[in-house]
Amino acid sequence: MIKVAIVGATGYTGEELVKILVVHPGVKITSLSAKIDKPAFISELFPELKGKIELICKEPDLDEVAQNADLVFLAVPHGAAMQLAPPLLKKGKTVIDLSADFRLKDASLYPRHYKFSHQAAEFLAEAVYGLPEMYREKIKKAKLIANPGCFPTSVILGILPLAKKKLLDKSAPIFIDAKTGVTGAGRNVVLNSLASEAKENVKAYKVGQHQHQVEMEQILAEASGSELKLTFVPHLIPIQRGILSSIYLQLKDELKEKELWQIFKDSYKDEPFVQVLDLGHFPETKSVRMGNFCRLGLYAKGKVAIAISAIDNLGKGAAGQAVQNMNICCGFSEDEGLI
Amino acid sequence: MIKVAIVGATGYTGEELVKILVVHPGVKITSLSAKIDKPAFISELFPELKGKIELICKEPDLDEVAQNADLVFLAVPHGAAMQLAPPLLKKGKTVIDLSADFRLKDASLYPRHYKFSHQAAEFLAEAVYGLPEMYREKIKKAKLIANPGCFPTSVILGILPLAKKKLLDKSAPIFIDAKTGVTGAGRNVVLNSLASEAKENVKAYKVGQHQHQVEMEQILAEASGSELKLTFVPHLIPIQRGILSSIYLQLKDELKEKELWQIFKDSYKDEPFVQVLDLGHFPETKSVRMGNFCRLGLYAKGKVAIAISAIDNLGKGAAGQAVQNMNICCGFSEDEGLI
Amino acid sequence: MIKVAIVGATGYTGEELVKILVVHPGVKITSLSAKIDKPAFISELFPELKGKIELICKEPDLDEVAQNADLVFLAVPHGAAMQLAPPLLKKGKTVIDLSADFRLKDASLYPRHYKFSHQAAEFLAEAVYGLPEMYREKIKKAKLIANPGCFPTSVILGILPLAKKKLLDKSAPIFIDAKTGVTGAGRNVVLNSLASEAKENVKAYKVGQHQHQVEMEQILAEASGSELKLTFVPHLIPIQRGILSSIYLQLKDELKEKELWQIFKDSYKDEPFVQVLDLGHFPETKSVRMGNFCRLGLYAKGKVAIAISAIDNLGKGAAGQAVQNMNICCGFSEDEGLI
Amino acid sequence: MIKVAIVGATGYTGEELVKILVVHPGVKITSLSAKIDKPAFISELFPELKGKIELICKEPDLDEVAQNADLVFLAVPHGAAMQLAPPLLKKGKTVIDLSADFRLKDASLYPRHYKFSHQAAEFLAEAVYGLPEMYREKIKKAKLIANPGCFPTSVILGILPLAKKKLLDKSAPIFIDAKTGVTGAGRNVVLNSLASEAKENVKAYKVGQHQHQVEMEQILAEASGSELKLTFVPHLIPIQRGILSSIYLQLKDELKEKELWQIFKDSYKDEPFVQVLDLGHFPETKSVRMGNFCRLGLYAKGKVAIAISAIDNLGKGAAGQAVQNMNICCGFSEDEGLI
Repeated sequence: MIKVAIVGATGYTGEELVKILVVHPGVKITSLSAKIDKPAFISELFPELKGKIELICKEPDLDEVAQNADLVFLAVPHGAAMQLAPPLLKKGKTVIDLSADFRLKDASLYPRHYKFSHQAAEFLAEAVYGLPEMYREKIKKAKLIANPGCFPTSVILGILPLAKKKLLDKSAPIFIDAKTGVTGAGRNVVLNSLASEAKENVKAYKVGQHQHQVEMEQILAEASGSELKLTFVPHLIPIQRGILSSIYLQLKDELKEKELWQIFKDSYKDEPFVQVLDLGHFPETKSVRMGNFCRLGLYAKGKVAIAISAIDNLGKGAAGQAVQNMNICCGFSEDEGLI
Repeated sequence: MIKVAIVGATGYTGEELVKILVVHPGVKITSLSAKIDKPAFISELFPELKGKIELICKEPDLDEVAQNADLVFLAVPHGAAMQLAPPLLKKGKTVIDLSADFRLKDASLYPRHYKFSHQAAEFLAEAVYGLPEMYREKIKKAKLIANPGCFPTSVILGILPLAKKKLLDKSAPIFIDAKTGVTGAGRNVVLNSLASEAKENVKAYKVGQHQHQVEMEQILAEASGSELKLTFVPHLIPIQRGILSSIYLQLKDELKEKELWQIFKDSYKDEPFVQVLDLGHFPETKSVRMGNFCRLGLYAKGKVAIAISAIDNLGKGAAGQAVQNMNICCGFSEDEGLI
Repeated sequence: MIKVAIVGATGYTGEELVKILVVHPGVKITSLSAKIDKPAFISELFPELKGKIELICKEPDLDEVAQNADLVFLAVPHGAAMQLAPPLLKKGKTVIDLSADFRLKDASLYPRHYKFSHQAAEFLAEAVYGLPEMYREKIKKAKLIANPGCFPTSVILGILPLAKKKLLDKSAPIFIDAKTGVTGAGRNVVLNSLASEAKENVKAYKVGQHQHQVEMEQILAEASGSELKLTFVPHLIPIQRGILSSIYLQLKDELKEKELWQIFKDSYKDEPFVQVLDLGHFPETKSVRMGNFCRLGLYAKGKVAIAISAIDNLGKGAAGQAVQNMNICCGFSEDEGLI
Repeated sequence: MIKVAIVGATGYTGEELVKILVVHPGVKITSLSAKIDKPAFISELFPELKGKIELICKEPDLDEVAQNADLVFLAVPHGAAMQLAPPLLKKGKTVIDLSADFRLKDASLYPRHYKFSHQAAEFLAEAVYGLPEMYREKIKKAKLIANPGCFPTSVILGILPLAKKKLLDKSAPIFIDAKTGVTGAGRNVVLNSLASEAKENVKAYKVGQHQHQVEMEQILAEASGSELKLTFVPHLIPIQRGILSSIYLQLKDELKEKELWQIFKDSYKDEPFVQVLDLGHFPETKSVRMGNFCRLGLYAKGKVAIAISAIDNLGKGAAGQAVQNMNICCGFSEDEGLI
């Protein structure tokens, strides 16, 4: 039974972590904290937790967190995690960070993409990117895991098999059209996220400029051995949870649809949380809702290939994957507590 | 051609007013103002107005407003209108106020229900409650019109015929279960109005304590000649626009369903914007969406009667009714510019 | 490990049953059947079940069902269950019926409310109404459990403590305004359930005439020892799952709000799935979503009382409660597999 | 005042046509028909029309239609229009067909894309494709107008300026990721369109195989003088109305974003219903909701260009554009009755 703390327990991601971990048989939640007006029982904040956990959520106190927990989940805003992780690591704790603070290897990218200078750049090298389908062996031994972004998870899994086999036309752009639900923006109170603004509407945002693009590029470059040219366009749609990424690819050489499918099927054959659908079938976000699965549908014609990828942004795109990483690095069965 | 100004043009109600008035053949919008960071073309704020009106929306300047307009719509928060109306009235302007500031006759009710002391109480007596179905003759001559609240409009119209004929059991409570869409909360950026919070959810709020209850009680007491006991329970549901009020009534004496229906039918036979549905039919909010109609469905059994009332909260519940009032007091056809 | 069958596995209720039972530690699903064009793996129909259960769903064959299972869930339309239950009962199987076929004690009520003559009326006496909060002891020994309707569950739990204590004014009507999500209509392909019809809309239906009213009346009469006069008005709102019932009550004598609350609190103090909220708080459907809880909020003023009740229509309102009943009659912990 | 008939008045498109035309000052609706169980007043079917039009909708009778109307809108399913148009044309009527039956020039394409053999192929040559931005002069004199599909309208307008100027890399694929609301499927009662299925979900469908792709290809080939390679992927999202098409383009030569913008701006400078947004801005479907506008947002980087196009599928994508075509061919102001 390992003891875990969640810092940032009141956001959508933190809330989801609590709900998954509270029924995880190998874990005891010992500390919950967040920016909060006054301390409150977590079951008052999220009434569905009533009877399952009686812990007070209060402002984070790192000493107390470290004293009570072996492993700490950081579900805090970008820029905050880089200040919390180092002292915890120095005390020997394992840290799974759900922010972007340790995802990029090159510290110089942070000012441009995240509007801050990195203050713990010396930890970037040791941080392991927590995508089990690519870095499982490293995750097993990691002390600092940078849990992937929701969009990058959905996108990388749709390209990885082709990138690794170098089947893509490197000179051609990869277009990624992603659709995300409204919880993707977090529990942040801004005009555009009002129900009266966001319901009955669809729009693109940050066209070609989303901060997650550089994260995808870094990982896919590592997978393929060379740079790939991505154009990433996120769209906001009125669903609560879920990301559907439609990925438009151009191949070096023609592939039959059956061949494309076999490449993905082989690549993910041992993966517990990636499902490659039969040809002619494409995933829906509702089929991965509340879970940790990524489901992929494929299409090919001539040198064109399309991969469509569905995840739950709070599941495989955040809290679910964080627990998957915990399971791997703590020696649990990889799917323990996950659906 | 009368010249009109809208103060508070950027909220949902103000926006709706602009959209109705911009195609009204008897009106020219000459001034638009609102709390706004910097002046901006209204067509930049609401792009669907492009090509229809090229007016800059800026912070309100009462002298300028008075200079440019014959009639002023106040679509500002409660507590702000009572400061804007008096100077405009003194300059001879007609004022249609969409806030609650001039709806209650008794100034002493404001501190309890609206959390402010009234600073223009001397105008409460002359203000005409802008419900044409009850006060049409007074509206014709009014200089200050207190446009009814959205809930009171939907509720009063469902009770008025029975109140006027004194058919209700005065000792029994009237239960009103209202369901409102998310624009009812205005363009205010608060956590509970986030799409991620309000979608896929229904809840009651301010149970028995909503500030609109006293407004209904005042008007219905005037109609019936005695006090009626209301218990008003609003609910928030995930639609954009619309209010459905289900009104549970107890009668002094039994009424056949046909008799109940005939009473409503007679009462509203000359009303351009109230439709009494055939027995067995009940209104849906989508059938009044974007319009100025109130539709009513009726049920009776023994001494129990039910009236179900549907309006668009931004139409008949706010901007539509304000334009109806303008049409009446300016001598236009009552349905000019309204659907 | 008991062996269970689900007949009607492809409707929303059947689907929910499969998803709950597939992770229930004391149960093995051995048979899945439904009206279906051709046999198919259940994990093809509901892809989120992939890897969790590999069973083919086909047309029901009662002999095979009886051979493979100790306990059978019937999640079939009203009128179908009364034909399936008797042969299963005769073979010694326990039957939990989620239809209305065994809920009413008086067979003569079926033609009027359900449009069919009962063909297994001799089983109505032995059927136990599966509301644990009222009939737990009988459920322990039952062989035929009539699982309550979704509306009756939400309504009865909001009235039961007052009915049992005879605190209601029997001469006054009880008004029930219920709001249900779109899955309440089942996976039936009808015009009114189209997204393009039901989204962005709210409406009342079957006003004072819903077939669930008689079920509530029967149970509440039994609880209170005399007839109560209900007026039940269901409304369709655009959420996926959830029922919020707002119950408007008139008391024999005045009750302080605190007294009302204490009565409910005492009444449900040992109930694992009923939560009485603190005064001033009212439940939201999202807080019971995907779970088996009923949450209650209360209000009182003079002789008026309001109880607002929230459940998940597919959880406590159907499949969750059916599993709760199974847990009780099979000797599992009552909350096993339920959240 | 011209007399118009609408055949197929009860579908979403027909309903929209009635609502636009009923307030059009140059038009009198004289005949409404549809597949319908029994004749009914249109204002019973669509209560918001009460008081605006009192016409009975019944099964279509072509002789009667021809007798009563100068111009006929066909809002009937694909395959039905080709049987209705010829007799009407022979009687000298103008026909605006909202189905696909006269959109393709090559009759041999119908069996593959629409599953029927064309039975009025001799009319394909004279049919004018009703996209005013491309064929306005021909529309002026047309007797048979093939109103464009909703997806093709949104897509063609996003590519047309580049196609006409031959700036696209003809060897590279054009990827089109379209998102459509639920009314796009029509008022057809099928499982996938249920609210309980389509809400809270997003999915791709007919990937690379949608019947509208060939329509886009035909028109764009005519505009560019050579074939363009399209890959069209529609997605279903839970909004009522609206299409957002994100169009991923590869250019022959690099273009600065400003240059791209200027090309679109120049191309559409006289168009009353196409708006090119300032750089950095992208359209939302809600800003074109209920109207006839197409709004375009643009992005360029190197040889990559993106055009994002928003329309209302029932407005510019169907009924609005049909009325625009009527306005052109009947000599009304092009925006009469349209917003």
